[in-house]
Amino acid sequence: MEYVKNAWYVAGWSSEFADDLRRVTILEQNIVMFRNSQGRVIAMEDRCPHKMLPLSKGKRIGDDIQCGYHGLTFDCAGKCVRIPGQDNLPASIYVDVFAIREKNHIVWIWMGDPQQADEATIFDMPEFTDPAWHAHQGEALHLKSNYLNVADNLVDPAHVSFVHPTTLGNASSENVPVHVDTKSDVMKAWRWIRDAPPIGFFQQFGGFTDNVDRWHYYYLHLPSIAVIDFGSADSKANLSEEERDKGVRVFALHFLTPVTADYTIDRWMHLRNTALGDNAASEQMDQLFKIAFAEDKEILEAVQEEENHSDNRRPVRIAIDKAPIAYRKRIKKLIDREAGHETAATGI
Amino acid sequence: MEYVKNAWYVAGWSSEFADDLRRVTILEQNIVMFRNSQGRVIAMEDRCPHKMLPLSKGKRIGDDIQCGYHGLTFDCAGKCVRIPGQDNLPASIYVDVFAIREKNHIVWIWMGDPQQADEATIFDMPEFTDPAWHAHQGEALHLKSNYLNVADNLVDPAHVSFVHPTTLGNASSENVPVHVDTKSDVMKAWRWIRDAPPIGFFQQFGGFTDNVDRWHYYYLHLPSIAVIDFGSADSKANLSEEERDKGVRVFALHFLTPVTADYTIDRWMHLRNTALGDNAASEQMDQLFKIAFAEDKEILEAVQEEENHSDNRRPVRIAIDKAPIAYRKRIKKLIDREAGHETAATGI
Amino acid sequence: MEYVKNAWYVAGWSSEFADDLRRVTILEQNIVMFRNSQGRVIAMEDRCPHKMLPLSKGKRIGDDIQCGYHGLTFDCAGKCVRIPGQDNLPASIYVDVFAIREKNHIVWIWMGDPQQADEATIFDMPEFTDPAWHAHQGEALHLKSNYLNVADNLVDPAHVSFVHPTTLGNASSENVPVHVDTKSDVMKAWRWIRDAPPIGFFQQFGGFTDNVDRWHYYYLHLPSIAVIDFGSADSKANLSEEERDKGVRVFALHFLTPVTADYTIDRWMHLRNTALGDNAASEQMDQLFKIAFAEDKEILEAVQEEENHSDNRRPVRIAIDKAPIAYRKRIKKLIDREAGHETAATGI
Repeated sequence: MEYVKNAWYVAGWSSEFADDLRRVTILEQNIVMFRNSQGRVIAMEDRCPHKMLPLSKGKRIGDDIQCGYHGLTFDCAGKCVRIPGQDNLPASIYVDVFAIREKNHIVWIWMGDPQQADEATIFDMPEFTDPAWHAHQGEALHLKSNYLNVADNLVDPAHVSFVHPTTLGNASSENVPVHVDTKSDVMKAWRWIRDAPPIGFFQQFGGFTDNVDRWHYYYLHLPSIAVIDFGSADSKANLSEEERDKGVRVFALHFLTPVTADYTIDRWMHLRNTALGDNAASEQMDQLFKIAFAEDKEILEAVQEEENHSDNRRPVRIAIDKAPIAYRKRIKKLIDREAGHETAATGI
Repeated sequence: MEYVKNAWYVAGWSSEFADDLRRVTILEQNIVMFRNSQGRVIAMEDRCPHKMLPLSKGKRIGDDIQCGYHGLTFDCAGKCVRIPGQDNLPASIYVDVFAIREKNHIVWIWMGDPQQADEATIFDMPEFTDPAWHAHQGEALHLKSNYLNVADNLVDPAHVSFVHPTTLGNASSENVPVHVDTKSDVMKAWRWIRDAPPIGFFQQFGGFTDNVDRWHYYYLHLPSIAVIDFGSADSKANLSEEERDKGVRVFALHFLTPVTADYTIDRWMHLRNTALGDNAASEQMDQLFKIAFAEDKEILEAVQEEENHSDNRRPVRIAIDKAPIAYRKRIKKLIDREAGHETAATGI
Repeated sequence: MEYVKNAWYVAGWSSEFADDLRRVTILEQNIVMFRNSQGRVIAMEDRCPHKMLPLSKGKRIGDDIQCGYHGLTFDCAGKCVRIPGQDNLPASIYVDVFAIREKNHIVWIWMGDPQQADEATIFDMPEFTDPAWHAHQGEALHLKSNYLNVADNLVDPAHVSFVHPTTLGNASSENVPVHVDTKSDVMKAWRWIRDAPPIGFFQQFGGFTDNVDRWHYYYLHLPSIAVIDFGSADSKANLSEEERDKGVRVFALHFLTPVTADYTIDRWMHLRNTALGDNAASEQMDQLFKIAFAEDKEILEAVQEEENHSDNRRPVRIAIDKAPIAYRKRIKKLIDREAGHETAATGI
């Protein structure tokens, strides 16, 4: 399928890359990655142009990779520096390289034209480095699902009451309307559930027992990074939207890496303004998140399975779909723009 | 592939359906089934029209089903009765329902237009309720085979000598000619093997040791129900065709449910005029049947495997194929009629 | 895919065929094989023309095969000799047979027109029966790879240094040029590595510790038989090309049987002029070969996997590809000739 290529995707946490050659697949492209002798992460097309053996089946010779079949050797710029049995090294023999940056302990890869890779556009939040906040990297959730369905789910507050009734939602929110802003660069959907019993998560981490005001803000950064800002405060405080920092507040981040048309890796982490430096709290939160994410996985994989076998769907749109529909249109526009299909008249 | 839709198929034994949501696939259509609070079996399209999640992943709210993703709720008529987040319930949001009837402890489903579902056309036999007969439900044989090949096999007396030499056939019948009647509504193939050693089945259940007259009548009710009337009597009695009730007589019933183009469920049972109320006899018969059906399964799955990979078959027809060939023509005619492709001039 | 059909392929070692019906697949053709009452190996199309059941699911009646479904029976010439239920045996009902010869304890099958099968063209070497040589049949290596890629690898001395650094190659040969002769009927590639440390194989079987002269001659007999003549001698002897018999010399034979477009069986054996009659030496050599062949298998299967998923390869040719490229051209020419596509003007 077609993807937005001129964008920074997450290739992995920084801790995932070391000396050894690692094969990853992103946007259906096989890539060999490793950390070179200067500590820099390198990413190259994982295929020798000669006989197509994955270079990850070869070995490192210093910072170069030597193919495991006939010894063709490529440097970190993708240039062929050795062909055993001949002296000339034709310029036509090379492998593609990908722009890589590390930031906030995350390895970012630019899947399009390296010349257009602008470090300033990498996703960031001040809370990553704010001492009033605790950042905790979680795991990589593998889903047999197209990334668009996963992203839909992350800008969709409505599913929480039905998919996560014991952890992230409860019946109080079933009929609370959702606000949506799809005009800005970042898609946004949110709602407040005022004066209602606390959900399981905040019973555990906020210590709330009486009624609370609870908020869920979903931000979707194109093409596939979601930030869910959720929290709770005693209802008696009657917090305004801007006062969320006064409550117990958590940012759940989801970095979606499209692998193939029906496989996505969701690396998740959280930032929180409570239990700073408390590793036990991190682990407990992870446990709750994992229950919820397993619930999402079951739903999303069942939907994907159905999509794989259905050709006669009659599309149905309901009120809660506003943000997902706008998101899909935006993605399509970005893909069209990269392909040069954009109509001059309409612009963006 | 195309199927006859305006017909009653077996969805399962009555005992297979209870409170819980059960997903079944019939004619490549996924269906969610359950027994409602009035004890009636309900069958609905197993797919929420919103995001295509199977409704069987959701839960019952009384006699309605609530989707497990966003809570859309459908009643037993397929009507959407709730969409969380909005008040209006568009008529365009619904799921298909299927006509269901229970009869003789079997759940029947009509896969076509519910308006045309006529209860009077459900397969029946007087022996189901005749106290002189014992009815015994067997199991569900799953075959990786197209249902047409399975049905062929059930109107094909000729295979018995070769596929079931120790149970249902023996060498005596190898060259006995088969009579065929393909003119009536029900296809029929039959033969008598007179004055020959008894087959394994009737050695065990008839107690025969001397020569017997043995009959096999194969009836195929379109689209996919087979009745095999077989039995034996002492050769000295010299029974006429009409006197079969005087011998030891068994009806082996096969209800074929086409699942997909290469998967069929064969629910089998038998009716017998001997060993009434004798459960041990039922179990012993089941054991013999299971040996024979495993033999059929091996053959039919090997044939399907070959069909899946062969494109250059030169078709060969021999004398014993008369009934299967007529059966296939009939099925094609029924499918054409449903599609409105039937030529007015030819009629049926 | 298309294959050269008018050629002798290896169906198996003689020891693989006995009384029982054995199903094999060669050039995507399913074949039933057995050794008949005269000890002759028979090969027939493994599919009854009636309902397509593999005949290997049936049973032998003397030297005939009776289908396991309806008893149609075929003799060793593929002629139908019995159809239960009818007397006439139409000539249109038959199965194809294949020409078979046994030679040097190997069963050879001719996959094309049996009329053109010429026993004189079966691969042979005088060393098979020369008492100065020891012949040892090895095993059948199954590779999920197209046979052309496997054959490439067997006329490719250049991969040895990189794929088999501990057994059949070492760093001494990395840059030694390869000679190639692609003009003769048999493709040939070879090189001598003079005055270099012995490879693992000849440390073990030649007892060499000082520098040796080592040769590798790769002969590829079309369509898919490879002979690798390799050996070593003390460098001080300074052997000429013609004096190889004075060194420790081994012929490694590979008989490739294309099964499907991505599956190949490589039956390997060796002939040697050392350790005659020494079974322990045979086993030790097998162990070394198996290490090397497992290395080939890993590479070739990874290449096949890549080919299966790649559509945008930019072909790259380097100096060492001369023999493989010529080999592929020859195969294409043979296939075109069989198809009658050959242009009269060019001839061969």
